[in-house]
Amino acid sequence: MRARNKPWAEDHLKANPQFVPADPQSHKGCWKADVFGNNHELHIEVGSGKGRFITEMAKLHPDINYIAIELSESIALSALECMIEADVPNVRLLTINAEILNDVFDKGEVDRVYLNFSDPWPKNRHEKRRLTFKKFLDLYKTVLPENGEIHFKTDNRGLFEYSLESFSAYGLLLTYVSLDLHNSEYEGNVMTEYEEKFSSMGQPIYRCEVRYQ
Amino acid sequence: MRARNKPWAEDHLKANPQFVPADPQSHKGCWKADVFGNNHELHIEVGSGKGRFITEMAKLHPDINYIAIELSESIALSALECMIEADVPNVRLLTINAEILNDVFDKGEVDRVYLNFSDPWPKNRHEKRRLTFKKFLDLYKTVLPENGEIHFKTDNRGLFEYSLESFSAYGLLLTYVSLDLHNSEYEGNVMTEYEEKFSSMGQPIYRCEVRYQ
Ligand SMILES: C[S@@+](CC[C@H](N)C(=O)[O-])C[C@H]1O[C@@H](n2cnc3c(N)ncnc32)[C@H](O)[C@@H]1O
Ligand SMILES: C[S@@+](CC[C@H](N)C(=O)[O-])C[C@H]1O[C@@H](n2cnc3c(N)ncnc32)[C@H](O)[C@@H]1O
Repeated sequence: MRARNKPWAEDHLKANPQFVPADPQSHKGCWKADVFGNNHELHIEVGSGKGRFITEMAKLHPDINYIAIELSESIALSALECMIEADVPNVRLLTINAEILNDVFDKGEVDRVYLNFSDPWPKNRHEKRRLTFKKFLDLYKTVLPENGEIHFKTDNRGLFEYSLESFSAYGLLLTYVSLDLHNSEYEGNVMTEYEEKFSSMGQPIYRCEVRYQ
Repeated sequence: MRARNKPWAEDHLKANPQFVPADPQSHKGCWKADVFGNNHELHIEVGSGKGRFITEMAKLHPDINYIAIELSESIALSALECMIEADVPNVRLLTINAEILNDVFDKGEVDRVYLNFSDPWPKNRHEKRRLTFKKFLDLYKTVLPENGEIHFKTDNRGLFEYSLESFSAYGLLLTYVSLDLHNSEYEGNVMTEYEEKFSSMGQPIYRCEVRYQ
């Protein structure tokens, strides 16, 4: 995802602590109580981009807490605008690298991980950067409960094929798969920015749910 | 697969024991030595239809033994014609129901199972008839070695989705998957009759390899 350099991004994010908590590491183990003030499930989206999916989910499911994880501050700005506009209490935004998830959340603190249209990194030598590479599956495991779930969708065939193999090699249970989400019986789908773009170009959207066991 | 009733089918099959061994059960445990006269790997195709795939594979791989398993005698007639025409020594045809595979082969006697364009049985209540239903995965296990493989391809999205979930629930390892075989880097693909038909209609062909563990 390309974004122009926005030097004011950091300042603007900091100026909105109601959506962008400062010092995420300090909340490790107490996100629900400290930040959301409730004991609801916590779902995170890793690589949330402009934030439409997670904000929409937060509106639709007021009894679930949501956190968007987005590496790029410039892109996160759009997510922040989305959240300010929606003005719901159950969504937050962290501009961190997914690689430090285990510094930010305790084991079992996150109830579900969403991956939507993750960067495909098609070259073999970039395999380690894919968010479904073994190293990341290890990381999600450290923050999910025993039978925690990953819900993943993408238009990218190569990434989806790779991910199905990676999930299987890791021993994850495939509980759901659709090879054409928009022509399936799946209900309650919330589109992401990338999903809108690629499905309007006629690409099938692939989606699966896997569970640690 | 529809076929007109062909009463002479059984006689014609019996008249060609060089390709259609009589009394398959009697060879259980000794297919390689008794029937093929060698110690090569044995690959079977379950639901082989008109036999083009397996005959072509036998031509391409003279060091592998192949057995086509086809329930319908009428359809098997076409496979027999295919084999007579090809005139290779490493292919056979059995008109049996896959449900009795364990009466025909010993544990580890079959080195690989191919499933190509298996009947989809789309209704939930027909799940048990799908060749990737748990009961059949049990059966293949009884004839394959420890880390035996199933290679499966189909144009049917619903069946492929179902099968990926069924394989995972069974604990099979997904070692390869392609969601568009004819636009992938996979080499050495041999087309089946159904594959030719459906791919010429523009449908993507799904393919995967799974391994018992
Ligand atoms: C292709 S975009 C998809 C955005 C959004 N999920 C959608 O579907 O529209 C992928 C996003 O993941 C972010 N990303 C990539 N690697 C990341 C990482 N290691 N940690 C956090 N975010 C990451 C990128 O900055 C980018 O915004
Ligand atoms: C849709 S056709 C596909 C034929 C061929 N593999 C192809 O790709 O062209 C499926 C075939 O499987 C056979 N079949 C279905 N269930 C079977 C069973 N339980 N045992 C053996 N053959 C079976 C059917 O008779 C039919 O010929």
